[in-house]
Amino acid sequence: MKKVITFGELMLRLAPAGYTRFVQADSFGATYGGGEANVAVSLANYGHDAHFVSKLPAHEIGQAALNSLRKYGVNTSDIVRGGERVGIYYLEKGASQRPSKVIYDRKDSAIAKASPEDFDWDQILDGAEWFHTTGITPALNDEVAAITLEAMKKCHEKGIPVSCDLNYRNKLWSKEKANKVMSELAKYIDVCIANEEDAKDVFGIEATNTDIHGGQINHEGYKDVAKQLMDTFGFQKVAITLRESISANRNLWSAMLYDGNEYCFSKKYDLNIVDRVGGGDSFGGGLIHALMEGKNSHDAIEFAVAASALKHSVEGDYNLVSVDEVEKLAQGDGSGRVQR
Amino acid sequence: MKKVITFGELMLRLAPAGYTRFVQADSFGATYGGGEANVAVSLANYGHDAHFVSKLPAHEIGQAALNSLRKYGVNTSDIVRGGERVGIYYLEKGASQRPSKVIYDRKDSAIAKASPEDFDWDQILDGAEWFHTTGITPALNDEVAAITLEAMKKCHEKGIPVSCDLNYRNKLWSKEKANKVMSELAKYIDVCIANEEDAKDVFGIEATNTDIHGGQINHEGYKDVAKQLMDTFGFQKVAITLRESISANRNLWSAMLYDGNEYCFSKKYDLNIVDRVGGGDSFGGGLIHALMEGKNSHDAIEFAVAASALKHSVEGDYNLVSVDEVEKLAQGDGSGRVQR
Amino acid sequence: MKKVITFGELMLRLAPAGYTRFVQADSFGATYGGGEANVAVSLANYGHDAHFVSKLPAHEIGQAALNSLRKYGVNTSDIVRGGERVGIYYLEKGASQRPSKVIYDRKDSAIAKASPEDFDWDQILDGAEWFHTTGITPALNDEVAAITLEAMKKCHEKGIPVSCDLNYRNKLWSKEKANKVMSELAKYIDVCIANEEDAKDVFGIEATNTDIHGGQINHEGYKDVAKQLMDTFGFQKVAITLRESISANRNLWSAMLYDGNEYCFSKKYDLNIVDRVGGGDSFGGGLIHALMEGKNSHDAIEFAVAASALKHSVEGDYNLVSVDEVEKLAQGDGSGRVQR
Amino acid sequence: MKKVITFGELMLRLAPAGYTRFVQADSFGATYGGGEANVAVSLANYGHDAHFVSKLPAHEIGQAALNSLRKYGVNTSDIVRGGERVGIYYLEKGASQRPSKVIYDRKDSAIAKASPEDFDWDQILDGAEWFHTTGITPALNDEVAAITLEAMKKCHEKGIPVSCDLNYRNKLWSKEKANKVMSELAKYIDVCIANEEDAKDVFGIEATNTDIHGGQINHEGYKDVAKQLMDTFGFQKVAITLRESISANRNLWSAMLYDGNEYCFSKKYDLNIVDRVGGGDSFGGGLIHALMEGKNSHDAIEFAVAASALKHSVEGDYNLVSVDEVEKLAQGDGSGRVQR
Amino acid sequence: MKKVITFGELMLRLAPAGYTRFVQADSFGATYGGGEANVAVSLANYGHDAHFVSKLPAHEIGQAALNSLRKYGVNTSDIVRGGERVGIYYLEKGASQRPSKVIYDRKDSAIAKASPEDFDWDQILDGAEWFHTTGITPALNDEVAAITLEAMKKCHEKGIPVSCDLNYRNKLWSKEKANKVMSELAKYIDVCIANEEDAKDVFGIEATNTDIHGGQINHEGYKDVAKQLMDTFGFQKVAITLRESISANRNLWSAMLYDGNEYCFSKKYDLNIVDRVGGGDSFGGGLIHALMEGKNSHDAIEFAVAASALKHSVEGDYNLVSVDEVEKLAQGDGSGRVQR
Amino acid sequence: MKKVITFGELMLRLAPAGYTRFVQADSFGATYGGGEANVAVSLANYGHDAHFVSKLPAHEIGQAALNSLRKYGVNTSDIVRGGERVGIYYLEKGASQRPSKVIYDRKDSAIAKASPEDFDWDQILDGAEWFHTTGITPALNDEVAAITLEAMKKCHEKGIPVSCDLNYRNKLWSKEKANKVMSELAKYIDVCIANEEDAKDVFGIEATNTDIHGGQINHEGYKDVAKQLMDTFGFQKVAITLRESISANRNLWSAMLYDGNEYCFSKKYDLNIVDRVGGGDSFGGGLIHALMEGKNSHDAIEFAVAASALKHSVEGDYNLVSVDEVEKLAQGDGSGRVQR
Repeated sequence: MKKVITFGELMLRLAPAGYTRFVQADSFGATYGGGEANVAVSLANYGHDAHFVSKLPAHEIGQAALNSLRKYGVNTSDIVRGGERVGIYYLEKGASQRPSKVIYDRKDSAIAKASPEDFDWDQILDGAEWFHTTGITPALNDEVAAITLEAMKKCHEKGIPVSCDLNYRNKLWSKEKANKVMSELAKYIDVCIANEEDAKDVFGIEATNTDIHGGQINHEGYKDVAKQLMDTFGFQKVAITLRESISANRNLWSAMLYDGNEYCFSKKYDLNIVDRVGGGDSFGGGLIHALMEGKNSHDAIEFAVAASALKHSVEGDYNLVSVDEVEKLAQGDGSGRVQR
Repeated sequence: MKKVITFGELMLRLAPAGYTRFVQADSFGATYGGGEANVAVSLANYGHDAHFVSKLPAHEIGQAALNSLRKYGVNTSDIVRGGERVGIYYLEKGASQRPSKVIYDRKDSAIAKASPEDFDWDQILDGAEWFHTTGITPALNDEVAAITLEAMKKCHEKGIPVSCDLNYRNKLWSKEKANKVMSELAKYIDVCIANEEDAKDVFGIEATNTDIHGGQINHEGYKDVAKQLMDTFGFQKVAITLRESISANRNLWSAMLYDGNEYCFSKKYDLNIVDRVGGGDSFGGGLIHALMEGKNSHDAIEFAVAASALKHSVEGDYNLVSVDEVEKLAQGDGSGRVQR
Repeated sequence: MKKVITFGELMLRLAPAGYTRFVQADSFGATYGGGEANVAVSLANYGHDAHFVSKLPAHEIGQAALNSLRKYGVNTSDIVRGGERVGIYYLEKGASQRPSKVIYDRKDSAIAKASPEDFDWDQILDGAEWFHTTGITPALNDEVAAITLEAMKKCHEKGIPVSCDLNYRNKLWSKEKANKVMSELAKYIDVCIANEEDAKDVFGIEATNTDIHGGQINHEGYKDVAKQLMDTFGFQKVAITLRESISANRNLWSAMLYDGNEYCFSKKYDLNIVDRVGGGDSFGGGLIHALMEGKNSHDAIEFAVAASALKHSVEGDYNLVSVDEVEKLAQGDGSGRVQR
Repeated sequence: MKKVITFGELMLRLAPAGYTRFVQADSFGATYGGGEANVAVSLANYGHDAHFVSKLPAHEIGQAALNSLRKYGVNTSDIVRGGERVGIYYLEKGASQRPSKVIYDRKDSAIAKASPEDFDWDQILDGAEWFHTTGITPALNDEVAAITLEAMKKCHEKGIPVSCDLNYRNKLWSKEKANKVMSELAKYIDVCIANEEDAKDVFGIEATNTDIHGGQINHEGYKDVAKQLMDTFGFQKVAITLRESISANRNLWSAMLYDGNEYCFSKKYDLNIVDRVGGGDSFGGGLIHALMEGKNSHDAIEFAVAASALKHSVEGDYNLVSVDEVEKLAQGDGSGRVQR
Repeated sequence: MKKVITFGELMLRLAPAGYTRFVQADSFGATYGGGEANVAVSLANYGHDAHFVSKLPAHEIGQAALNSLRKYGVNTSDIVRGGERVGIYYLEKGASQRPSKVIYDRKDSAIAKASPEDFDWDQILDGAEWFHTTGITPALNDEVAAITLEAMKKCHEKGIPVSCDLNYRNKLWSKEKANKVMSELAKYIDVCIANEEDAKDVFGIEATNTDIHGGQINHEGYKDVAKQLMDTFGFQKVAITLRESISANRNLWSAMLYDGNEYCFSKKYDLNIVDRVGGGDSFGGGLIHALMEGKNSHDAIEFAVAASALKHSVEGDYNLVSVDEVEKLAQGDGSGRVQR
Repeated sequence: MKKVITFGELMLRLAPAGYTRFVQADSFGATYGGGEANVAVSLANYGHDAHFVSKLPAHEIGQAALNSLRKYGVNTSDIVRGGERVGIYYLEKGASQRPSKVIYDRKDSAIAKASPEDFDWDQILDGAEWFHTTGITPALNDEVAAITLEAMKKCHEKGIPVSCDLNYRNKLWSKEKANKVMSELAKYIDVCIANEEDAKDVFGIEATNTDIHGGQINHEGYKDVAKQLMDTFGFQKVAITLRESISANRNLWSAMLYDGNEYCFSKKYDLNIVDRVGGGDSFGGGLIHALMEGKNSHDAIEFAVAASALKHSVEGDYNLVSVDEVEKLAQGDGSGRVQR
């Protein structure tokens, strides 16, 4: 059990039931999620003292967001209460050839309007053994980017490992802006997580000869990207998730971890998707756990991919699986036979 | 069938099922409503060519809002598409001694960020026989207040009657600001609708000796308020709704119409409440219909109150009742016996 | 445990959830009900071998209707399978001043198109100790009226007591037609059940000085009606239910039984209504049970009224209560305290 | 934006939730659909002034049916109100080896009992640029067949293109009757739409060497059928949909358009089915849009097939997709990747 | 914010939706509750560091029970994991004259099979400022009674105030047994909470001349009972809740607090009941908060009764209200007007 | 129509909706099931007089369990009422690589605490033409094992064929105990049903060279197992189901029947799973029907496998399919095309 700090935004997710389209919905499932909070839930499920740091309004919707984390054991004592609104994202689940659709309504959320004084990083980071955030957080605005930078610098000073999932969101910032901000943050990042498009969007580093829409995975290309990332920014580890999208219901899913030494490719899972959102975050959660536990790169990437494979079968953003469940799948039982 | 124009904001209403509290909800009923749209739906149900004028985003949530009006026959061809978000209000239904609770998240909605060029009032008002809005619309901000003023002036020029429900919302503006803006608009209002608190909050005109929390209704006080309103602003008619709140489930409901001549008090209904939101708007819708149909003040106020009594039995903001249903109740059958 | 035969139509009931109006519904609760089937369910719940006789299509909707009776222990072995459709009634639940609304879509149902050969009454009635039907069944058409008459005559021959609830439905036949047909059937009826309007609608016999809409119950008037009914048709017992409708949510409920000797008025219940449909049928079921058990008129009417008071708290047409629950209420505990 | 007229029946669809069987259902999803109304919704979604012409009862169930079209922008002003019932179809969704099941209860619906005087075709067709119906409408009865013929003749006179989906329903009429009536109507049809069985059932024209149950598609056979249809009836275009049913959950879907010149086969989609009903209608809607827009045969058939592929991912009869969504799929992105 | 310890059983509550009867249910709402856990939730909502002490199985149902407490901020770190089952109670909500019904299936739950070694009271009670349990806990069996006694003795030693709600359950033990066990525990109880029947059932102390079924409250009788309780057992305070049950939907609710000096009767609330279960526990939670905050007896009893009045409007066992909400009601605003 | 007796436990099944995990559930679908009851429902659906023999509490949960069988036509007159609890199993449905999970809470259920005097086998078996149970029933405890043995011996005396599904449950007993008890029962079993693991777990008889996790089916191995079973225990027929688990959503399913003469392998179905629980029981139900109808081994195994293939598409434990549906699939139509 280790103390881990994640920092970012927790949003209200409003999703029509099943495969109902937005225009058909007369109710929305109301759950909560966000890249960093999702990682915190994963880590709490794996038995860690996972803290989520953010700002949420004092009203009942803010409270409900916070409660959704407490329920799964996340420590919420560092969440500042204030501001006016909980950011929202509307999610319509796709099927077959129809893609899932996300509409963001997250502007001016409490965390987006937070100020540096809201967070006392020395106190928050006291005793922490890991810090995690994603590229979404500094994308909110310059103020939040500055807060993120401050936190990372403190980690660096204190020797707390920092992981960051690049998670480029083009609705939040331009590639140019992302490049500029993330390049500065990158100096303090130890473990860089990205999918096949992030490296290109954020840093202009491309996986050569890889056609992600066609579902072809080019191992050499990914190695090249990982190496470039490490060489450019000095990351200690680079993890890349590899999604091959056959349809909205079916994806192939694997990943690679480069530790400066070896390029470890995981096995590939054929996923029948229940809920794809949070898939990348569950990979991050799994990877952080595996690295904190001292697994070698091979075992770490298998744990992280198995964790995220399971996530695709779980409704909501949060990956509600245990270490045992992940280990069992990582070690080879993907038959889905009933556990009595 | 008359062409009626209503102007204002249409919001997404997110409400936990039944009497569930916000912090218990894992889904929200998703309906749409707003003071002026609610009136448009009432009038469409009564057979009029009711137009709702507003601005809604081009995305699917904006479309769903618009569809909710089309479904009930409201003409939506004057709704401008654009902007980023649909305003939201969260609604928790109260019961017994626990009051209903509303949390607004409506800032920066598409209509709040509309500009005068979005609306061509000459074209919109062409052929119209009534115009209605509420005090909520100019409260959004100065730009929208200016648009409202422009619309009212055009109506005045064209001889189109204007009704306005004062509907003071203290979360949107101060009493001072409301007073200033509404006093200007009042010059163009023919029919003023208010509840027992609005006249005081907006214009500082008080119902003397009336204790609304205690549920005592002072007829003389209301007459006095209505007369002051008419004398001050030159309204042709003043209607005041009278709510006596016994509990969140049970209210007594009646109203008064002053036409410069007579003070007509309606009968009083003992309401077992299904959904209280939109109660005032349904009164406005009933009153406009009754006045357009040329009913005398007695019949008009009875129609309006019967319409709004029925609204309290209907889920959602919209009053989904027919002229026949309202007439039947207004004429005295409130026994609720099964109609086979 | 006695064998009882009931004969009539079983319909599919389609009802929007809660207080949702028809035009708001995007799903319908699907239950089954009908005057005579409802009585059969009551009697099965009281431990009797209750048979329901009817005709239902061989397809799955017909099967689902039949299963709804089997589930509660009704013997369905005399239900003929054939015909094309299950009759439907749409039910919108009222609230406060808004009445419940029923739309019938029952024409050409399997039972309405049944022929006399479908039913072998000698076999069906073998061993039976009671026969029950309602005025709805002969109202379906002349063919079904003839089948009903045949059944009643057979009962008369075999000495099986016959009860009939007049249940006038103006959508099914005219008062003239009802009078003609029911007057013939009345010859074979031992126990006549009616509400305050049926006697007038079917036989032109009026409760003098009684204003049912105003909720005033005139005891003398009811006695007069009961006496006229008995004198005219030679019934052995006449039961009249007395509903005072305060609103769609709240009714006062009582009844009277006249046995030729005494006029026994029950206590009166103040009902907070969950589901009012089937209220009269549950009274019939309670009365038949009480009479079969040999209760005296006082106890019988109290049992029947308590049974039907409970029905108003049960969703659906069927009265799912036990003898113990009815007895407990009839004997005076209406406090509704939790039973642990 | 073009004015399009569709004519036919709109039914209430009652469907158990998810994969629940009829005998398990205690509620039914209540949506509305019908071959021609479904096409109207498609076209309204594509931005056209789509009118649906039919007859629906004046009661609330009829109103709800009508509202379901208004909601999605269909013009309902030509729907006649009257008659007694809304036709019904019960739908049980199949899965894996268990087929979906439909039970019709549509006899004597308002449109089935309509008379020629109900429709003033000169007025209805005024300004129209397309007319569409299906073989289901004339199958209702001779009266409705005559109304259909009248409408088509008027279109012919006015130079309005007529499309018709053969849509043979053996529960409604015999092959002989269908042949006779449809052969007469065929004279006025410009665009004939059929699936692999319709041509045979209605006109006795067979796709040689094609085993549809085995899922083998014989291109030459389909060309032959299309050519025979065109040669026999003088259609300007013949479109044939090609469904290969692997299981209730998975179908392969493609189509062919013959324009007298070329036989254009579309790409084939591997469908993970959400809701298969209305799949053919969405093809018709897509085809009409594509032809009205002047697309060439290749692009037209790709648009129509992409539209209908998407339909299989949408709950309910209506195809709630936009031109953009269809174009994107037709142009090759079927990966189902999340749209943020 | 004070540290409070509550000790007892947390059960899974399975309840049909709305007013559905058990035999109609095809799903159960699944929430969690129990007399002591309910108090812990109240206190966490009031801002205290409320710990719930119990034993729950390590499996997912046990985890879900625990999560239900974490969600609302209860500290669950003292809950021992082990044992086989979570105790269950089935709850059918009553209406009107039909009472709510509870079926217990709680035998051999994890806590009922706990042993003294499971709990290290010195550690658990470290820093605690209050201890609360109910008569249900020692009723589970002798082992649990012994654990309870041990905990109370430790409190006594440490000067931690102990409150206990007598909560007699005749399904768990006889009156004789209850008397024996509770008399021993009573020595360590500072604040005794009881309803009008508990004092009689457990200790044979009767409220003279009080007919609770008839709804008559005899103030003198209650004073007498409270005084007897205090005189016999040396309690510092005795609180008695006074429920007058008019129907399953409507109760009158008040309470009395005797502090050895004064008999303070609260105001009486007329409750329109949403969920009655946990009503007594919410009183206890309110009282403990009020006493810990140092309120005088008048204010304390008003706070406790207002808290529990609100509980009757909240679904589930837990009283999800804030100090502000309770204070507002206690200070007189029970009108239920919408809070915007 | 033949009289069949099945004997065993009927449990309440509590399952979160859809793919929701246990810790996410705030309601459970409540259905009923158990190996032998499931077979009874299958047989009732095939038109037999299927009796289920067990013991269920007299309270409403017991009644609801019983009603679930009556609904589908199972004869419940031999179910003894008494005891305290209905056994429960919690079911979480798996997806993709995440397996379904079952948590049992069945200890001390009414049937587990039944005694031999509860069942008068001479009367129960009177007129019966088949008896069926499973290895779960004797596994409950020695008392129930003795009752099972008594029933089987009586069948043997009366010449009633006995079938038994080995159904090993390691949570209920050890392999040693199972071996001992089942070896004794085996003397009276005519038809033995097993899956690929049961023979090994119960009797130590292995399918050589078969790797069930890898999904490879070794025909020779299964023949060997069947032959060993028959040789050892003298069964007349041995049926083995062959499940190849590709994921929680997709299984391949087939079976083999050995009649002492021939080893008949069925065709293999590729199942898209809706609900996997009860799959084996539906095989048993199909096999018993086929054998009672006198089908040859080839047809019998095809019927049984088709029946169980369909079961995987039906929600709940019960296989709600008709003989016609099974025959149609067995004869080759697995295309899942809509049945109109």
